[in-house]
Amino acid sequence: MAQSPGLLQPWVSRSTSCSTRNGLRQWTQPLCGKAVITSEGTLIRNKKGFTLWFTGLSGAGKTTLAGFVEQELRARGLSVEVLDGDEIRTNLSKGLGFSKEDRDTNIRRIGYVCRLLSRNGVAAISAAISPYRDVRDEVRRLIEADGATFIEVYVKCPIEVLAERDVKGLYKKALAGELKGFTGVSDPYEEPLAPEVVIESNRETVESSVTKIIRELEQRVQLPQLKASGHSGAVRTALDAEGLETLAQALMSA
Amino acid sequence: MAQSPGLLQPWVSRSTSCSTRNGLRQWTQPLCGKAVITSEGTLIRNKKGFTLWFTGLSGAGKTTLAGFVEQELRARGLSVEVLDGDEIRTNLSKGLGFSKEDRDTNIRRIGYVCRLLSRNGVAAISAAISPYRDVRDEVRRLIEADGATFIEVYVKCPIEVLAERDVKGLYKKALAGELKGFTGVSDPYEEPLAPEVVIESNRETVESSVTKIIRELEQRVQLPQLKASGHSGAVRTALDAEGLETLAQALMSA
Repeated sequence: MAQSPGLLQPWVSRSTSCSTRNGLRQWTQPLCGKAVITSEGTLIRNKKGFTLWFTGLSGAGKTTLAGFVEQELRARGLSVEVLDGDEIRTNLSKGLGFSKEDRDTNIRRIGYVCRLLSRNGVAAISAAISPYRDVRDEVRRLIEADGATFIEVYVKCPIEVLAERDVKGLYKKALAGELKGFTGVSDPYEEPLAPEVVIESNRETVESSVTKIIRELEQRVQLPQLKASGHSGAVRTALDAEGLETLAQALMSA
Repeated sequence: MAQSPGLLQPWVSRSTSCSTRNGLRQWTQPLCGKAVITSEGTLIRNKKGFTLWFTGLSGAGKTTLAGFVEQELRARGLSVEVLDGDEIRTNLSKGLGFSKEDRDTNIRRIGYVCRLLSRNGVAAISAAISPYRDVRDEVRRLIEADGATFIEVYVKCPIEVLAERDVKGLYKKALAGELKGFTGVSDPYEEPLAPEVVIESNRETVESSVTKIIRELEQRVQLPQLKASGHSGAVRTALDAEGLETLAQALMSA
């Protein structure tokens, strides 16, 4: 697609109007996906972004994978934000607990921020447990309604492996009945029914997991290619440290 | 500045690393402000955005002005999000009240979202009362720390005018002592000491207020120009409806 510097394309039509739906401002005129170069050479991107939504049990590798994918996307020049559970609980959900209602509220807030980001061309990555299917699907619907892409990545790992790994010692406590509301043990985790990507983090290497996610992204969104094939230098360097360990091993030695 | 299609500029250096400060992920390598066109013609904007932060009493005209400025910026091709008090209370702050502590939490959340948006090239507009100076200044510091621009717009209007206008009938109640915690009457409002823009909404026309804000933006950020001088068609049409009424009159007849 050729970029023609010069004229600012008037992409807000006269019929554009604003209303509120689900507490979020809606423009009746869908935002145009065209890029604009003004006469001053100012560059504006009106492209939609996407939300990459990791879900899975505590310790399965969501944050680790999110970090590698983030580096890969930044190396390709994208604007990226990673929202993990801890960060959101600090900045948006202080005071919320771990009841179904509070968890849902927390996930809706992450979803709201992902929605604002991805409808403005940013790659938003969520790495929270997000145990309930209905709220994940609700977030997906809202993001897709804005014309942005939603990709669910299920980071799957058997509870026995997680309990063995148990970096924070939480599974031991939960399995001994000392920890209430621990997802997967004393609190529900609802597996996604049709996630775009499934990562079996106890069987796959970090590199192959990251590749799988990037390949899916390449098929779904217009992702800039790196000149060299494979991962960026940044990610490759990072992965070198992991060698060919599985993600599970990498996490255990962390 | 000429755009050279072809090579993806490797703007994430090898020394880039991530840490957490104030609960927010920080990249040691500041994001580059250059725009990138990949070999596929995919356009990427790595420019910083800005936060336009309206503050002022209830009914002073913050949301009205935010709406006009939003249209003007969209007409120039920018990605824009308006976060007003009601929207944030619905999506991020349900359950919070109007104590100093809860108001501060609410404003910090708006600030957090503005920060994520503006450091990714979006024009974020806040239109909440935001009565306390220290939290407004805290938000400013965090946004500027990311290399984005923060512009405070104080929408000033004497309380007598607001009480006379009193679209929602709240000032009457508050002045009669029937409404606790009403900003400016039974709850504090701390005026900004050095706002970038002051709008006297009982004296200025909507058009001149919007122009003042846009002029300030043009001086502070690389704002795309419209081909014709003055306001965009969208804003001019909207303003036609208001004629040369002052913002105060426009609000009273709303």
